[in-house]
Amino acid sequence: LAAPIELVLRHPGGACPILVGRGLLGAALEPLAAAVAGRTAFLVSSQQVRRLHGAPAVASLAAAARLVELDVADGEAAKSVREAERLWRAMVEAGGKRDSVLVALGGGSVGDLGGFVAATFLRGIRWVQVPTTLLAQVDASIGGKTGIDLPGAKNTVGAFHQPHLVVADADTLATLDPAELRAGLFEMVKMAALLDAAELERLEERLPDLLAGDPEALVPAIAGSIAIKAAVVEEDPYEGDRRRLLNFGHTLAHALEAVLDYRGLRHGEAVGFGMLFAIELGEGRGLPAADAGRLRALIGRMGLPDLPELPLEAVWEALGRDKKAREAGLSWVLPRGIGRAEITRDLPAERVRESLRGFLRRRGR
Amino acid sequence: LAAPIELVLRHPGGACPILVGRGLLGAALEPLAAAVAGRTAFLVSSQQVRRLHGAPAVASLAAAARLVELDVADGEAAKSVREAERLWRAMVEAGGKRDSVLVALGGGSVGDLGGFVAATFLRGIRWVQVPTTLLAQVDASIGGKTGIDLPGAKNTVGAFHQPHLVVADADTLATLDPAELRAGLFEMVKMAALLDAAELERLEERLPDLLAGDPEALVPAIAGSIAIKAAVVEEDPYEGDRRRLLNFGHTLAHALEAVLDYRGLRHGEAVGFGMLFAIELGEGRGLPAADAGRLRALIGRMGLPDLPELPLEAVWEALGRDKKAREAGLSWVLPRGIGRAEITRDLPAERVRESLRGFLRRRGR
Repeated sequence: LAAPIELVLRHPGGACPILVGRGLLGAALEPLAAAVAGRTAFLVSSQQVRRLHGAPAVASLAAAARLVELDVADGEAAKSVREAERLWRAMVEAGGKRDSVLVALGGGSVGDLGGFVAATFLRGIRWVQVPTTLLAQVDASIGGKTGIDLPGAKNTVGAFHQPHLVVADADTLATLDPAELRAGLFEMVKMAALLDAAELERLEERLPDLLAGDPEALVPAIAGSIAIKAAVVEEDPYEGDRRRLLNFGHTLAHALEAVLDYRGLRHGEAVGFGMLFAIELGEGRGLPAADAGRLRALIGRMGLPDLPELPLEAVWEALGRDKKAREAGLSWVLPRGIGRAEITRDLPAERVRESLRGFLRRRGR
Repeated sequence: LAAPIELVLRHPGGACPILVGRGLLGAALEPLAAAVAGRTAFLVSSQQVRRLHGAPAVASLAAAARLVELDVADGEAAKSVREAERLWRAMVEAGGKRDSVLVALGGGSVGDLGGFVAATFLRGIRWVQVPTTLLAQVDASIGGKTGIDLPGAKNTVGAFHQPHLVVADADTLATLDPAELRAGLFEMVKMAALLDAAELERLEERLPDLLAGDPEALVPAIAGSIAIKAAVVEEDPYEGDRRRLLNFGHTLAHALEAVLDYRGLRHGEAVGFGMLFAIELGEGRGLPAADAGRLRALIGRMGLPDLPELPLEAVWEALGRDKKAREAGLSWVLPRGIGRAEITRDLPAERVRESLRGFLRRRGR
C-alpha cells in the first residue's frame, strides 16, 4: 500500500495532521503511537464499529500506557447528555487525567460526542479522530466542531475542540452500506461544487468507481475533499461567514430531516435534495443554465431516493425555528457558477415558498 | 462614588475588561449595556442572590433586546449535569441564538455553572460575570475556568471560556456573612503571599477594615488581588505550571474538603489551613523563620475555626485520588519567602505524613 497522504489543518491552537490512506488502522502508525504514548487512552466507539474495526484499532494504540474501551449508543442516539455524562463518569472512575487521550473510532455521531467529551473532560484533553464512514472522513472529522443534541434541537450543546490527529483509513469503508457511501459522496460534491471546480471535475470522472467503493479511487477523493474543507476552516475556525459556505444544501436539508424526525432519509441524501433546491433558487439569481444542468446531472447520476410526501406547511415551518427567523430572512448558500457561491438572506419569502411547493410536488413519491 | 477601577485580562481570544468599584450594579454602566445591547440576555442566578441583587441587575441590563431570568440551585448544588442541562434546554426553548449573552449573577458556583453553559451552548456564546461574593470577585471570576461537578469529583467537567466582561461591585458584599468575607480574604492572602510582597503589606495594614467589610478598603484590595491573578492567567491561560502557583494551600484544602464532604468548612477556610500546613512544609525547605512567622501571624489575625477532628488515614487517602498518585509524589506549592514560591513533587511521602499527623492533632478541636 502507498504511504498515506498527509494533510495539515492549522488552527488558533496549533495544527492538526490528517492522514488519509489504506490499511492505516492496525499498521504501526507512528503519529498515532506518538499521540497516545505513555498515556491513558480512552477508546470511544459503538458496539457495531468495535466489532468491525476494534481489533486493528486496539493494535494501533499499543503504545498507550493503558487502554480503556468505552462503548456508546449507535448513531445519533450517541449524541445525548446522558451518553456524555456516562462517558465523563467512566473516565473519572477509570482515573482519567489531564494528559489522558480520547480516541473516537466511528461515524460522525461517535466523533461529535467523543470530541465534546474530550473538550469538556477536565476542561479539555487531547483527542484523536478515527472516522469510519465516508461522511465522517470528509466532513464531520474536519474542523473541530463537536457537540450533542437536546430533545428536538440538534447540536445545541458543544464546543470547538480541534483533534490532535485525524486518521482516515479508506479500507474501513469496505464494510459500509452502499447507501452510506453515497450519502458521503453528496457532501463531497457539495464542497467541490461551490469551492473547487477542478475537484468537481475529478469527482465527475471517477463517480462510478467512487459509488462502487473502490478504495484506490476513494483515497485521493477523500483527501481532495478534506483539503477543501480544511482550507475553509483555516480561514474561519469559529464558523463565521466563510465557513457557512459549507452549508450548501443544508438550509432545506435540515428542515427535511426535522420534519421526518431524522428517520428515513440519510443526512447526505437530505443534502442532495437541498442542493437541487438551492440550484433552482440560484438559477433565479444568475447561475448559468449550463452550470445548473451540470450540477443536476452529477447529482442525478448519484441517485436519490424518492422524497416521502411532505406537507408544504410542515417543511416551511421547519425552515425557521420560529416565525421571526423566517421573516428576518432565511440564510441560503446558492451556487453562482461552478466553484463559486453566494450566501444570501435577500430571497423574498413568498418566492421561496412557491419554489418549495413545486419542488416538493415534483420530488415527492 | 468614585469611578470604577478598570483592569484588563488579555487572553488568546481577546481581552476581558474587569470593573471594580461601588454602586456599579443598577447604575448606567456603559460596558455592561454595550455587552448586551440588542441581544437576548439570559440572567442566571440563584433565588437568594436574585432577591438581594436582582432588581439593580435587571436595571443594568435594560439595553438587552430581551431578558430571560433563570434560577439555579444555591451553592455547590448548582454545579451539576442536571442543572446545566436544565439551563441548556431553557435557553433553547427561549430561542437562544449564537449572539445571545449569558449574565452570571452570584457566587463562584453560579459563575462556574453559568460559564460552562455559556461555553457549550451553541458551541460558545458571550458571557458576563457579576460576582457577588468576595471569593468569586477576586478568584473564581478571573481566568475563564468554568465547570461542573460529577458525583465525588469536583470540577471534572468544564471548559476554558473567558468572560466578555467582569463587574465586581463591592457594595454587593454588604449582604455577605462575615465568615464568607473572611473566606474570600484567605484567597487574597494566598495570592499576595506568594506573588506580591507589596500587596501583602497592604493587606496586613488594612486587615481590620477588610474584615469589617468596609467597601472603601475592599475596592482597592479586590483590584489588587485581581491584578495579581490576571497577570498569572495572562502568562498561563490554560493552567500550565505558572498558574499552579495559585494553588498555594490547595493541596491540603481539597483533601480536607473531600473528607468533610464539602460541609462544615468554607473553601477559603480550608485554604487557610492548607496555607498553614504549606508554610510548615516550606520551613523544612528554606523558608526563613521570620517570613513563616509573618504569614502565620496574618492568618492568625484573620481567625480560623477549629478543624473538626479528622482521622489521619482519611485525610492522607484524600490527598491523592489513588495510591499511585501519592506514590508518584503529591504536588505542593510552598512559600520560599514573602512573594516567592516553589512547586515541588519531591517531598518524601513519609515526611509529609508525619507533618500531617502533628498538624491535625494541633489544629483539631
